[in-house]
Amino acid sequence: MIKPIIKTLWWENGRLYIIDQRVLPEKERILELKNIRDVWESIRNLSIRGAPAIGCVAAYGVTLSALRIDTKDSKGFIKEIKSNIKYLKTSRPTAYNLFFALSRMERVLEEFSDMSISWLKERLLKEAENIYREDLDCCYKIGVNGARLIQDNMNILTHCNAGGLATSGYGTALAVFFTAKKQKKKFNVFVNETRPVLQGARLTTWELKKAGIPYTLICDNMAGYLMNLGRIDMIITGADRIAKNGDTANKIGTYSLAVLAKYHKVDFYIAAPYSTFDPSIKNGKDIPVEERDAEEVRKIKGRLIAPSDAPVYNPAFDITPTHLIKGFITEDGIIKKPGGWLSG
Amino acid sequence: MIKPIIKTLWWENGRLYIIDQRVLPEKERILELKNIRDVWESIRNLSIRGAPAIGCVAAYGVTLSALRIDTKDSKGFIKEIKSNIKYLKTSRPTAYNLFFALSRMERVLEEFSDMSISWLKERLLKEAENIYREDLDCCYKIGVNGARLIQDNMNILTHCNAGGLATSGYGTALAVFFTAKKQKKKFNVFVNETRPVLQGARLTTWELKKAGIPYTLICDNMAGYLMNLGRIDMIITGADRIAKNGDTANKIGTYSLAVLAKYHKVDFYIAAPYSTFDPSIKNGKDIPVEERDAEEVRKIKGRLIAPSDAPVYNPAFDITPTHLIKGFITEDGIIKKPGGWLSG
Repeated sequence: MIKPIIKTLWWENGRLYIIDQRVLPEKERILELKNIRDVWESIRNLSIRGAPAIGCVAAYGVTLSALRIDTKDSKGFIKEIKSNIKYLKTSRPTAYNLFFALSRMERVLEEFSDMSISWLKERLLKEAENIYREDLDCCYKIGVNGARLIQDNMNILTHCNAGGLATSGYGTALAVFFTAKKQKKKFNVFVNETRPVLQGARLTTWELKKAGIPYTLICDNMAGYLMNLGRIDMIITGADRIAKNGDTANKIGTYSLAVLAKYHKVDFYIAAPYSTFDPSIKNGKDIPVEERDAEEVRKIKGRLIAPSDAPVYNPAFDITPTHLIKGFITEDGIIKKPGGWLSG
Repeated sequence: MIKPIIKTLWWENGRLYIIDQRVLPEKERILELKNIRDVWESIRNLSIRGAPAIGCVAAYGVTLSALRIDTKDSKGFIKEIKSNIKYLKTSRPTAYNLFFALSRMERVLEEFSDMSISWLKERLLKEAENIYREDLDCCYKIGVNGARLIQDNMNILTHCNAGGLATSGYGTALAVFFTAKKQKKKFNVFVNETRPVLQGARLTTWELKKAGIPYTLICDNMAGYLMNLGRIDMIITGADRIAKNGDTANKIGTYSLAVLAKYHKVDFYIAAPYSTFDPSIKNGKDIPVEERDAEEVRKIKGRLIAPSDAPVYNPAFDITPTHLIKGFITEDGIIKKPGGWLSG
């Protein structure tokens, strides 16, 4: 049984807990999510973020809501949970793992609609636990598969946080580093701070420090210059949604990195479990890109850094076309040539 | 006589004043620089920044120090001023205008070493005023020359602050926008926030707002995505030093923008007066790139955004090779093919 490296979210005695990612690394604050509204809010306000982590917490959130329903009306029970699932789907539009996990929970209700309410409650909990365990397992395998790419003295750049905090606790891009570290490889990670929400500066640094992995924090606009100086050997990021052709939605700034990597002949990899692959979407053009509040750009830690009425454009993600991606590090291995994997 | 659009620095009744750029746009605080140490500090701590502005304030700083020297020993007088000039040269290493201005002040001392102290004091003030007036004049002409590139409905991206605040008051890249606005052209400026010191978010937005020019603030890592969406028609930035072959040092992030511009076939221009061109440097490799304190990256407005001991790489500038630059907008016109201008 794989153990999480970071305790991101957990279910304990019928209660759902998360670490509040908004206040890391200054404070390690635990939040209990007590109802479906809490779960929705925690996803929307980024207390929990990262595509696989969102999927897990949403699945547990559905379970939580099911356990709280006190009724003998089976149809009403299923109807209410389905409405909660629909509600959670509105929390964030881009990460596919959210829809992947919620669809699995929904399928339980559909497949077993003639079972008793108490049986269904147990089955929903089991499904959430499966989603969580499978993610942990996938992330572990991503680590093992990706670590083969890491050689001594390499400098690897990562963007945003594709770590334990973004998953059930083992990470995707960072799983590669965790595993390589266990294999006693010596390498340095350049961490893009990742404006506007600074997941790199706040979360990835915190995880790497905990794991004893050497890192260097940079501003996002420094990565190209470092590549030009020959100081970046490889780039690995996570993903929020991957279309059938391999076009990948990930944190804003990923696309620029991929173009810069191409220009400087630096290998650019995406690390993600299959739950991030959306078979219903042909290419990146059809992936919805969330635009978030202007205040995320105008303010940092509550302090204004621009005129209070500054017009802002704040897309949370961008789309990297498949031809800029050298390979996808998945639980099944590194897929070098995207295309056909989902139809197969 | 050209009037500054922004009151960045001024000499009044024998006193030298600047607007404190560290606290803009929240506060419009005026600082009096009372001695050579104040001038050095104000440059080093970014109270005043921007290559042409640094040149102007350094020239006035030399004058200030000269006026304060109470001696009848002509040789001692010259020696002390030369030592002050040497001292100011250590304030920041990259911006060429600093050395350009200080060399002019030094030349006055050398050419007129047999003149009286009071004559020299007047001549030094005159030279500082000339440097200031010439910069204002150059910036105005840069505006007129560059405005020809701006057409209605264009979206132009700029990085950092190449505005009135970075010069004697009229700007370089922003002079182009100020002039186009006066010509009643309709356009939008995308402003890169420009981490780590946020000169775009804090200063460029403030200037554009004052001038009534529509703008949109973005994080630095969003520019590539916008280019991919076809939403950037042109990029104009300033420069801190331009080598003989056209390689250009400018705020960190400029190089990445230039590569992204090349990839997306977006025209990338540098706006700068001749005082930014360094005839002694063959190419970008020889331009010293200042590395600044890690705290600039770890903290924003005094608040930690990363582990307090996070290792950081913080180059203040990068070098954009000449082949990525479509043209240089100067006081003499737009130079399309760099090379030979300084030898000619």
